[in-house]
Amino acid sequence: MPSHPVVALTSESSWAMIEDKFSDYGKETLAKLVAFLEAEVYPASKLAHAQIPKDPEQRWKTVVPIIEELKVKARKLGLWNLFLSKTHYPKHGVPLSNLEYAVMAELMGRGGPMASQVFNCSAPDTGNMEVLARYGSPEQQEKWLVPLLNGETRSAFSMTERFVASSDATNIQTSIRQEGNDIVINGHKWYISGAGDPRTVLHLVMGKSDPKNKSAYNQQSVVIVPSNAPGVTVVRPMGVFGYDDAPEGHCEVIYDNVRVPLSNLVLGWGRGFEIIQGRLGPGRIHHCMRTIGSASVALDTMLQRVTDPSRKTFGKYLYQHGTVVADIAKSRAEIESARLLVLSAALMIDNHKAKGALKEIGIAKFVVPSMALGVIDRAIQSFGAEGVSQDQELAEMWAGIRTLRLADGPDAVHIQQIGQRELKRVPELVKKTTERKIKEKALFQAAKL
Amino acid sequence: MPSHPVVALTSESSWAMIEDKFSDYGKETLAKLVAFLEAEVYPASKLAHAQIPKDPEQRWKTVVPIIEELKVKARKLGLWNLFLSKTHYPKHGVPLSNLEYAVMAELMGRGGPMASQVFNCSAPDTGNMEVLARYGSPEQQEKWLVPLLNGETRSAFSMTERFVASSDATNIQTSIRQEGNDIVINGHKWYISGAGDPRTVLHLVMGKSDPKNKSAYNQQSVVIVPSNAPGVTVVRPMGVFGYDDAPEGHCEVIYDNVRVPLSNLVLGWGRGFEIIQGRLGPGRIHHCMRTIGSASVALDTMLQRVTDPSRKTFGKYLYQHGTVVADIAKSRAEIESARLLVLSAALMIDNHKAKGALKEIGIAKFVVPSMALGVIDRAIQSFGAEGVSQDQELAEMWAGIRTLRLADGPDAVHIQQIGQRELKRVPELVKKTTERKIKEKALFQAAKL
Amino acid sequence: MPSHPVVALTSESSWAMIEDKFSDYGKETLAKLVAFLEAEVYPASKLAHAQIPKDPEQRWKTVVPIIEELKVKARKLGLWNLFLSKTHYPKHGVPLSNLEYAVMAELMGRGGPMASQVFNCSAPDTGNMEVLARYGSPEQQEKWLVPLLNGETRSAFSMTERFVASSDATNIQTSIRQEGNDIVINGHKWYISGAGDPRTVLHLVMGKSDPKNKSAYNQQSVVIVPSNAPGVTVVRPMGVFGYDDAPEGHCEVIYDNVRVPLSNLVLGWGRGFEIIQGRLGPGRIHHCMRTIGSASVALDTMLQRVTDPSRKTFGKYLYQHGTVVADIAKSRAEIESARLLVLSAALMIDNHKAKGALKEIGIAKFVVPSMALGVIDRAIQSFGAEGVSQDQELAEMWAGIRTLRLADGPDAVHIQQIGQRELKRVPELVKKTTERKIKEKALFQAAKL
Amino acid sequence: MPSHPVVALTSESSWAMIEDKFSDYGKETLAKLVAFLEAEVYPASKLAHAQIPKDPEQRWKTVVPIIEELKVKARKLGLWNLFLSKTHYPKHGVPLSNLEYAVMAELMGRGGPMASQVFNCSAPDTGNMEVLARYGSPEQQEKWLVPLLNGETRSAFSMTERFVASSDATNIQTSIRQEGNDIVINGHKWYISGAGDPRTVLHLVMGKSDPKNKSAYNQQSVVIVPSNAPGVTVVRPMGVFGYDDAPEGHCEVIYDNVRVPLSNLVLGWGRGFEIIQGRLGPGRIHHCMRTIGSASVALDTMLQRVTDPSRKTFGKYLYQHGTVVADIAKSRAEIESARLLVLSAALMIDNHKAKGALKEIGIAKFVVPSMALGVIDRAIQSFGAEGVSQDQELAEMWAGIRTLRLADGPDAVHIQQIGQRELKRVPELVKKTTERKIKEKALFQAAKL
Repeated sequence: MPSHPVVALTSESSWAMIEDKFSDYGKETLAKLVAFLEAEVYPASKLAHAQIPKDPEQRWKTVVPIIEELKVKARKLGLWNLFLSKTHYPKHGVPLSNLEYAVMAELMGRGGPMASQVFNCSAPDTGNMEVLARYGSPEQQEKWLVPLLNGETRSAFSMTERFVASSDATNIQTSIRQEGNDIVINGHKWYISGAGDPRTVLHLVMGKSDPKNKSAYNQQSVVIVPSNAPGVTVVRPMGVFGYDDAPEGHCEVIYDNVRVPLSNLVLGWGRGFEIIQGRLGPGRIHHCMRTIGSASVALDTMLQRVTDPSRKTFGKYLYQHGTVVADIAKSRAEIESARLLVLSAALMIDNHKAKGALKEIGIAKFVVPSMALGVIDRAIQSFGAEGVSQDQELAEMWAGIRTLRLADGPDAVHIQQIGQRELKRVPELVKKTTERKIKEKALFQAAKL
Repeated sequence: MPSHPVVALTSESSWAMIEDKFSDYGKETLAKLVAFLEAEVYPASKLAHAQIPKDPEQRWKTVVPIIEELKVKARKLGLWNLFLSKTHYPKHGVPLSNLEYAVMAELMGRGGPMASQVFNCSAPDTGNMEVLARYGSPEQQEKWLVPLLNGETRSAFSMTERFVASSDATNIQTSIRQEGNDIVINGHKWYISGAGDPRTVLHLVMGKSDPKNKSAYNQQSVVIVPSNAPGVTVVRPMGVFGYDDAPEGHCEVIYDNVRVPLSNLVLGWGRGFEIIQGRLGPGRIHHCMRTIGSASVALDTMLQRVTDPSRKTFGKYLYQHGTVVADIAKSRAEIESARLLVLSAALMIDNHKAKGALKEIGIAKFVVPSMALGVIDRAIQSFGAEGVSQDQELAEMWAGIRTLRLADGPDAVHIQQIGQRELKRVPELVKKTTERKIKEKALFQAAKL
Repeated sequence: MPSHPVVALTSESSWAMIEDKFSDYGKETLAKLVAFLEAEVYPASKLAHAQIPKDPEQRWKTVVPIIEELKVKARKLGLWNLFLSKTHYPKHGVPLSNLEYAVMAELMGRGGPMASQVFNCSAPDTGNMEVLARYGSPEQQEKWLVPLLNGETRSAFSMTERFVASSDATNIQTSIRQEGNDIVINGHKWYISGAGDPRTVLHLVMGKSDPKNKSAYNQQSVVIVPSNAPGVTVVRPMGVFGYDDAPEGHCEVIYDNVRVPLSNLVLGWGRGFEIIQGRLGPGRIHHCMRTIGSASVALDTMLQRVTDPSRKTFGKYLYQHGTVVADIAKSRAEIESARLLVLSAALMIDNHKAKGALKEIGIAKFVVPSMALGVIDRAIQSFGAEGVSQDQELAEMWAGIRTLRLADGPDAVHIQQIGQRELKRVPELVKKTTERKIKEKALFQAAKL
Repeated sequence: MPSHPVVALTSESSWAMIEDKFSDYGKETLAKLVAFLEAEVYPASKLAHAQIPKDPEQRWKTVVPIIEELKVKARKLGLWNLFLSKTHYPKHGVPLSNLEYAVMAELMGRGGPMASQVFNCSAPDTGNMEVLARYGSPEQQEKWLVPLLNGETRSAFSMTERFVASSDATNIQTSIRQEGNDIVINGHKWYISGAGDPRTVLHLVMGKSDPKNKSAYNQQSVVIVPSNAPGVTVVRPMGVFGYDDAPEGHCEVIYDNVRVPLSNLVLGWGRGFEIIQGRLGPGRIHHCMRTIGSASVALDTMLQRVTDPSRKTFGKYLYQHGTVVADIAKSRAEIESARLLVLSAALMIDNHKAKGALKEIGIAKFVVPSMALGVIDRAIQSFGAEGVSQDQELAEMWAGIRTLRLADGPDAVHIQQIGQRELKRVPELVKKTTERKIKEKALFQAAKL
């Protein structure tokens, strides 16, 4: 029996572990996706890049033509909004599990940062669509969600603040307050992904509506802010190791007395924390799987470089020098184990929702980006100077993934949470140990030792 | 629906990945095993240790009473020879897959080096039984295999040589030659596990029968040598970081003109390499899973130590100092990902035999021991001096696992093989890249860029 | 007795090791340098950066005003061409040893990539001045060296080739051939640092003049090419991650039938390899020391961030979370040991010239950049998203140092050389071991054991 | 000019850094030491080991004959008590600085655990002699110090307790209280090095004499306990991995109503903490330098193994496989940088006493053992199974050094202290940064940017 086409791009042993958890629809969609990616999306990656002008003004006004063409094709093929699971979003979703989509996310990750857009599966839109689909009012869905689902607009999620450590949400300074029938927003954010895109029409803004609420988790609200509302200023693009990631960008944004109607409040006053919690779980898994796709591409690229006859030195292929073969083996092992880790987390989300998969999500979140950075760094090293240049995608890939160690909670936060979670097992362990010691003692007495 | 009892000792997410691959028999056996281990085997670990005398002579003559008692119980419960899969060994095997047994091996590994013996599943007997079951003549099976399967005798596999690098089998110096109806063996081996045990009745000896054969892989033969044959001298036990692992030990053995009947030849002249190849695959997975069991115990032990109120320093629990929580999180992540890696390798063996799982076995072989050594080392550190002492099992556990980085091929051999295997993917990658570049070019032309 | 002012920026214990190797002049110059850097250079770093326009054309035409101002001051203070040791360059040099200059290079490294320019001590000009001072003809010195020594012009060293692995100099494709009284150069280079600078008037071009010479090390020659010679095309700036390092840049350059007079040949036909060998030793040490300066700044920056009250999360300072304190301790230890390593290498150059210090230079070359990348990466992590942004110098610092693992021979080359050098000690070790074994045996016999 | 003989065993570049800090006496003594070690001590290492019987009783009653012979020779050569610096111990000391002795300690470390005894320089006697020389009364010195200085007796330092985390000295449970003219000691210690030796006549016991004293650092006292006092029971030797390190051992010791005269109190009531503080600084440096000696031996051993023609596999020398050459280079680099680190710490002790060298001592303490464990582990790996055996010293060396990460404060304590010490630099850094920002601003204003 022939393996599924996905095996050619991932691995036989991963597929063996999960195949029986795929529906027929999942398998077919996956096969269609593989074919379309290989035939049309991967070869378009360089052109998409080239279609963004170098000009510091123009590049922020660009809608990349080839992406738009491919979006039409993808949608026609039914490869659209694959991230949105029907189980949780019956109205708008597709009949795919998180596990099924996770594999697809890896494949999209192989196509660089723009491949996800082809399938309307790119962050931060994915998380924002989830928020609107789950918590949005019918009017909000009609006005903001539907165009997003159609891939006609884009969006930003406005959370990180410039002057405080906003990874602790209680530190947030942005103020969201009611004035009559309006909501007034004042705040200073940065690293707001997507805020640079000309198609971005809304920001989901997180701020404090009730800063004195006793519960630190009821102080925040989320509100929909049209990107063209008076008082919204996109100050500048923030850099990521010299890259600006135009046209989306990661922008500094000031909200200066921005006024929106009350109906733009999402879910209700004081429910901002709840909204961001729900938003993060699956999104982290998608990031991880795309990252594994990137790492796989880096390894494939390295393999070709170190066997390139024109790159021989001192009469030997590069792979015949030093630690190259060991580096390759290590990279392969790390990719395989990271993939299994993320897939098992995706499965846990399917079985127990994100709340029941916090351990697995947390582990994946801190393990996968560091793993990928190591793999990509080895690949860069194999390319010499070209590895850090614009002629290979490695350096940009590295820079993008480096930010994942900081975004959605820096590594340390997840590491501490996993460690603390383990510590909670202690009472049960102590109980077992105590019982065992009683038995041990009895055995020693019986044995007269 | 309640989870399977195995979850309490392993993890929910691993179990979710493999549950659907377990037969009902597998699930029931696993549940029985968990119950028996917790009730009787784990609490007996210390006694088993204590029943080995300190006296440098007596310790080598010991049959540990508590192990023998538990063997009777285990066999009665049907928890016997679980490593021997009916699929491959229809006559003697049990209806368990490699994947199913792999999980069981982890649980046995939690019980220390002697727990496997309770179930007649301990190395090197397991590999030797596989050899005899697969390749032994009916007479050989009757005489040597049956008592092993019954747990009445033990055995050694005599491969590693003292004076040459025998990890390259072509270096082997031991001579095995026919003289009339006899086979005469001369050789100098060491690190022969099991050779010290008073119950060991046979050595499977690997040597060269045809050193001039053009094919380096047809020069070797394997022969059954009774341990009490004239000319067999167990010279001394070899140490492992100061441990002798009595009574089995890892012994230096000289074969000086040892003479056995022709009928003791296994499989046929020149088939020694074939025999050891077949022997190694599943055995490596068992070692890996037991090692994961050890690492899990080390982490559980560490968790209890760092929360022990009597170990507070400077007013804080140990876990509140420095990097302890991060070390715990890292250990947990490493154990989870290593387990998935080994399970996927076991599944590949089930699906494609060991030959079709070389990549997965090789990765597990070099990843898992190093991972476990790191986890155990952190646990040792949390115990202070006690961590390296005889009062905790950590140091002995560490030493035993350290040898796994050397046995059955040192890490470097497996790393090189995995790296080389990756390099074989290059032609296919180059082909794809070439095709993609053609498409890329066409797209650029169409876009007039 | 008060310590030297340098201690405030480096460390007491390093200074204690080397103080007695400093001349009075060295100590005074160092004190003057510290004072000037702190008073004028470090505070100018941001302005220098800001004076480079964002405009993609203009930024390549910039001579940074503040740097030019500071150069005048530095020269007046006698802080000029400090890299050029009078011992080796009696005519143009300053009376400073390599060790003395190494400490100064660390201090310059603390001021970012432009601080070295203030003292006319920036690569690649330093190496080029050394080449011209050592090997240049009187005419070449008059025309090209003197303006460089005066800081009026800049230069490039044109070595790395785009399409071959030019770290093996025998692979070089650039052709340098005599035609009558001219030399004709054809070649395709990239990552030519300095080629973008408007003040750059010469390229030292390495190419093959005698590709069929039996000795692979006599095939190359080096020739002075005026940057405005017909046929010299600066194709584009190459990126380093997302940075272009304008105005110097690291450019792709094509030499298309470039014609220069015979008198532009440096040292003689076939002596190119000799020239680059001599060029590299001290330069590597300078890079290493500047890198240590960068790492120190990163650690100082991190220290301030993790104690910043406005960055508290969950009621704690950042340094009270997770592994921050341990990361700081590790960084400090790594910086201290790396500094000692490089200083000892500089001292070896002083004592035995670069040829006698190959081991120490090689070790520093592969140890220091990786060390610094680790330190800077931890600092980035402590800053969250800001760490990868243009608002902190950390990301740009990281990217620049990342290239040091590739430039002047990738890590692997130096690692292999140091390893091979160690292997050469084996005969002597074997001899000693053999002698010792004879004595051992005699002792055992005498002791009747 | 020929290098000093020490260069053959350490390195030219380290020697270059420190040579000018050696007195003539120091250089001569060092040369004499090198010659004696090579001629007599190193070749005796195996015999010394062999002269310790395997018998579990006898091995604890052994005074190793060859060591005693060598002690006589060493003393005659003036190579005696080299650790005791005349500067701090004018009456008993030798005219050597800490730096000078540090180099000698590395050389002793090359001879295995027993080489230091030859020169009466072995722990814990060295620290105990320092305590008695500095703080002992004339009677105490006459009775206990003089025989130790003569190498006629040995001693133990009794600090670590079995049931509490005694690395926090305030946790100590041992009670030391006055009863009339006696002192009564009750306590339960373990890992008391030297307590097993038949020549050990005294234990310096640390306990609490004033547990309610407000100052946690004035609660402890140190008292001299004769090892044969009634109530002193050496319970058992504690293991280090599988080693017992007989005859000295690391023993569990119970003090049960042990009664000694008041005159056995050292320094005074409540001054125990002061005593142990003074005891630790130089001793840590000695341990570190011996450890560097061990690591150097491990590397030398590995070099010989990987070039051994009888260990070829698959037609290649071991060093031609995989990462061996890189491992060697890494080990060499690590040894060189660790040595410089420790030497600079020793120099700081010479210049500023131990109190002024806490930073350097602390860094060395946590860096060096981990470094050496890595080097030795690579060497073990190169030896295959033999590496963990009793036939090579590597495994025992590894186990001994592993305890250094736990003894005298586990790694984490030193790492935290170094980190905290760095944090104390913050106010000064903030001040400088503030000043710099003012200047920066002025420069921007002047530049109209």
